[in-house]
Amino acid sequence: MHAIGVDIGGTKIAVGVVDEAGNILAQVRRDTAADDVAGIDRAIADACTELVAEHEVGAIGLAAAGFVSPDRTSVQFAPNIAWRDYPLAQKVSELIDVDVPVVVENDANAAGWAEFRFGAAHEATDMVMLTIGTGLGGAVVVGGSLVRGKWGVAAELGHMRVVPGGHYCGCGHEGCWEQYASGSALERDARHAAIAHPRRAARLVELAGGDAEAISGPDVTRAAQEGDELAVELLATLGRWIGEGAASVAAVLDPELFVIGGGVGAAGDLLLLPLRKAYTAELSALGHRPEAQIELAQHGNEAGIVGAADLARR
Amino acid sequence: MHAIGVDIGGTKIAVGVVDEAGNILAQVRRDTAADDVAGIDRAIADACTELVAEHEVGAIGLAAAGFVSPDRTSVQFAPNIAWRDYPLAQKVSELIDVDVPVVVENDANAAGWAEFRFGAAHEATDMVMLTIGTGLGGAVVVGGSLVRGKWGVAAELGHMRVVPGGHYCGCGHEGCWEQYASGSALERDARHAAIAHPRRAARLVELAGGDAEAISGPDVTRAAQEGDELAVELLATLGRWIGEGAASVAAVLDPELFVIGGGVGAAGDLLLLPLRKAYTAELSALGHRPEAQIELAQHGNEAGIVGAADLARR
Amino acid sequence: MHAIGVDIGGTKIAVGVVDEAGNILAQVRRDTAADDVAGIDRAIADACTELVAEHEVGAIGLAAAGFVSPDRTSVQFAPNIAWRDYPLAQKVSELIDVDVPVVVENDANAAGWAEFRFGAAHEATDMVMLTIGTGLGGAVVVGGSLVRGKWGVAAELGHMRVVPGGHYCGCGHEGCWEQYASGSALERDARHAAIAHPRRAARLVELAGGDAEAISGPDVTRAAQEGDELAVELLATLGRWIGEGAASVAAVLDPELFVIGGGVGAAGDLLLLPLRKAYTAELSALGHRPEAQIELAQHGNEAGIVGAADLARR
Amino acid sequence: MHAIGVDIGGTKIAVGVVDEAGNILAQVRRDTAADDVAGIDRAIADACTELVAEHEVGAIGLAAAGFVSPDRTSVQFAPNIAWRDYPLAQKVSELIDVDVPVVVENDANAAGWAEFRFGAAHEATDMVMLTIGTGLGGAVVVGGSLVRGKWGVAAELGHMRVVPGGHYCGCGHEGCWEQYASGSALERDARHAAIAHPRRAARLVELAGGDAEAISGPDVTRAAQEGDELAVELLATLGRWIGEGAASVAAVLDPELFVIGGGVGAAGDLLLLPLRKAYTAELSALGHRPEAQIELAQHGNEAGIVGAADLARR
Repeated sequence: MHAIGVDIGGTKIAVGVVDEAGNILAQVRRDTAADDVAGIDRAIADACTELVAEHEVGAIGLAAAGFVSPDRTSVQFAPNIAWRDYPLAQKVSELIDVDVPVVVENDANAAGWAEFRFGAAHEATDMVMLTIGTGLGGAVVVGGSLVRGKWGVAAELGHMRVVPGGHYCGCGHEGCWEQYASGSALERDARHAAIAHPRRAARLVELAGGDAEAISGPDVTRAAQEGDELAVELLATLGRWIGEGAASVAAVLDPELFVIGGGVGAAGDLLLLPLRKAYTAELSALGHRPEAQIELAQHGNEAGIVGAADLARR
Repeated sequence: MHAIGVDIGGTKIAVGVVDEAGNILAQVRRDTAADDVAGIDRAIADACTELVAEHEVGAIGLAAAGFVSPDRTSVQFAPNIAWRDYPLAQKVSELIDVDVPVVVENDANAAGWAEFRFGAAHEATDMVMLTIGTGLGGAVVVGGSLVRGKWGVAAELGHMRVVPGGHYCGCGHEGCWEQYASGSALERDARHAAIAHPRRAARLVELAGGDAEAISGPDVTRAAQEGDELAVELLATLGRWIGEGAASVAAVLDPELFVIGGGVGAAGDLLLLPLRKAYTAELSALGHRPEAQIELAQHGNEAGIVGAADLARR
Repeated sequence: MHAIGVDIGGTKIAVGVVDEAGNILAQVRRDTAADDVAGIDRAIADACTELVAEHEVGAIGLAAAGFVSPDRTSVQFAPNIAWRDYPLAQKVSELIDVDVPVVVENDANAAGWAEFRFGAAHEATDMVMLTIGTGLGGAVVVGGSLVRGKWGVAAELGHMRVVPGGHYCGCGHEGCWEQYASGSALERDARHAAIAHPRRAARLVELAGGDAEAISGPDVTRAAQEGDELAVELLATLGRWIGEGAASVAAVLDPELFVIGGGVGAAGDLLLLPLRKAYTAELSALGHRPEAQIELAQHGNEAGIVGAADLARR
Repeated sequence: MHAIGVDIGGTKIAVGVVDEAGNILAQVRRDTAADDVAGIDRAIADACTELVAEHEVGAIGLAAAGFVSPDRTSVQFAPNIAWRDYPLAQKVSELIDVDVPVVVENDANAAGWAEFRFGAAHEATDMVMLTIGTGLGGAVVVGGSLVRGKWGVAAELGHMRVVPGGHYCGCGHEGCWEQYASGSALERDARHAAIAHPRRAARLVELAGGDAEAISGPDVTRAAQEGDELAVELLATLGRWIGEGAASVAAVLDPELFVIGGGVGAAGDLLLLPLRKAYTAELSALGHRPEAQIELAQHGNEAGIVGAADLARR
């Protein structure tokens, strides 16, 4: 059975028809406004209507960046879109002239599910996905099932506390993992290094057009690939924090595989080697079990579409 | 169907027949030696044989303090008993003249399962149990199923790292949660307070017979119940660490209930109130979901028997 | 001998004639622009010229917020004024028609010296002053002498690291004491509490005119004085960090007195009681020496003028 | 003028005549018992009497491992010798038939003073000595004067807190610097690594005769010199903690030189390179002042004698 997956972003939505092997057979996009939730409903319905005219689909899955109700019908809260206890599935359903089930999933869960079913984890039963972007999103699969939690808010891995009294987080707390293990953390660390150690940061500042406050994650990766010592250290620090936090996650879940998604994957072994080293260094029960694999995600931006579509079929 | 549950300790084993409602219908005990694994096998078999003479049982569950293989047949490693990759289920099975399945479960998992089925969490579907004793043991139930992990080592919650560079742990790492959230942590904190603040610790030292190094957890609880300021603070600190760590666990699992087991429960609200306050203070997504309940366990020492028996039936 | 003290801020300067008892006999002010260093020189010279017309003075001391050379002649670097290796004493000297020595002192050192000579510490020989404002400035007096350090940069107490991996600091590092023990820290903590715990922060947000991002230190103090629970906790947390850091400073210097300056003093015992408690709790060698006193500063904004004048006489 | 210096240990005392250039002209030793304070007095007097028979001396300095009163007459408390508010100078003076001043100094202060006057810091005016042994002892010189503190307890640098909630310390607190930056810390880290990572620790365990609990600091240094990866990391970690803490000390004191004493110096660059790197990485105001030098001590065990003798002359 084919299904539609919808990846809803703040300014655009991407909608695709996905077959049972995880292939996207057709895809359309629509522009949206984050504060116009009715407009988002209409854009989704419009795109779906366009696709169902050409494809037979049995379900529609909506990937939303927010807290999704455990019955997969509504979005309780979203940081970047004006949803508040919003019955998204029903709203979209009412605007579509086809009678198929519509379900909502958290976007990180959807992306993780895509990796679990059709990507880096397709042979696994117990997996944790870490999506390292602006923040740190997570998805947890245990025994082949997605863990949504009692109230749909499981796998908020970025908000595990890793440093008491540590960096402030947008959630209002201190020391959240995502403040150490995200693209934003990498950028902030780089910008601070440019203050504390201007000479060492010269290449990074140069790549940022002379403005230390403009240093980006890709600048760090590029400098590191050139061999810049500070940039290599910054990626190693990022990798260390990801790996150390993953070891704590492993103490809870004992997965066979961690999948690392998000833009930082571009750094390759400059990130992965220190990441794996830190994971091994901090893993408990080392030697009494195989170590989990740690691999890069295989899907890119389309993971949300693929995962949402596949979850909607279930 | 009735089943037998066996709780295997370092110096004695407790064996009971458990009905489908979690009641122990009969119970026997045997003394054992931690380094005599064959003797432990025989003691288990002997006790089981005695019980099956009087009770019809359909399964036998063995609760072992160690890393248990995911197929529930063997103990990979135990800190206090000389099991190393030991096929415990088969060994016991061969010594028993009844043809019923024998399975091995981690003891913390068994205790948690008893609470989940017949105790504080019997109405829950998503639960985390924290057994606060010498260390911090855990059990995780997601969607009604026990989470064992890919290699049987899930729910080692006591080894989540909560303080980088923190207290040394017996596992060889630093900053493990159980070094802050256990009866041992409480005792160590009390003994250190007696060094740094002898005057404030006078009552605790008195309760310990004048020897600061002998201050025990129950001494702290007793002094706190009398109103001793330092003892009240020590229990509040223990509660704070339990609650803050639980908030990190909630970021991963979003459970509806935490069950607190182990001897520290005797401190009651002196522990629970600061524990719940800290949990709420550190919980992410507060306000976007109900808060998990935090309750004391209802079973005591017999939880291992009950949980192992019930898990063996499945 | 009378002396002139000059307190140089980013937008205005305050200049006073100070007698040997620390009294300000006359005072004038001038507006300045932070990026016009020559203009600042002229404004200082102009104000001094005005005052020496009426008062006989023997020395001029300039209090500058920046790194001052150990020979007290120039400012190596200032965060808020465009001085870079700037020979401030000579520049001012050349513009004044009176032949008296002109010396430069760090502003926190000058303020601390005022307290040491004429304020809360006038009976002490070994003192540490902590000026808790936007940042955390310090001044150290050992055996009656101001400690300037080999290169004039001693007593940068706000940049002791108190939390590895802690809050980012404007200096480019992480975990600096001033990120936990300053008015800015208090405000940031209050604003984050408003995100994580909106209900508890209702009164603070109300005092800030409905805008959580506008909560100020005085708002917190006012709410705490009304009995608001969150505000009381925020001041206690600030006090705890000041006290714990002071205990580390005491391990280095063993002073008899800490003087707490800056606006947070308005909170009085709401700050001082938790501060002193934390200091005692973390002090090493407790019981083998008297505990240092911890008192509020007696001078307010004029401390820089008084201290700079008095240091210039020496 | 020559002076006698006495280094008082728990089981023996070393006594020497020291000239004004810091040379030891003659030396004798006596065995003592830590709980027999009168016996220690007599042993000191006896050794001094022997030496004054052959040498003209003008003062006697006693280096004691304990809290020394600011007037240099008594020992308030010592962890390893049974002194409690003990008037050591007077007791020794009464037993000696020569009328010269007798003063008591803290042993770490004496050792630091030896380096300041005649060793690695003889050209400096502002110095901090870190003696890295079982613990971390310190000595501070500001503007050519030893900083003793108001009550004689300054320079207890090992008890600065560097990790909130960190390793327990014998002083009763948590996270003291000496629990991270001492020979004991090195050994504990090595022993824990042998638990968490037995394969990586194979060479260290071998050097310790097969017993992980017997791994010593010299074992780590030797393995590191052979190129053992874990041992190199352990020394680097030790160096990192020393360097990071030294950066905090520099924020307080702005010294021109740190002198590193104690047995760990044997590791040479394996310790010093990561130490200096960490110091530079964490130093505030980097670029606005020269960086302090970090050098190994030049005196060995005789530093206490030399420093105590020289301080007694002042």
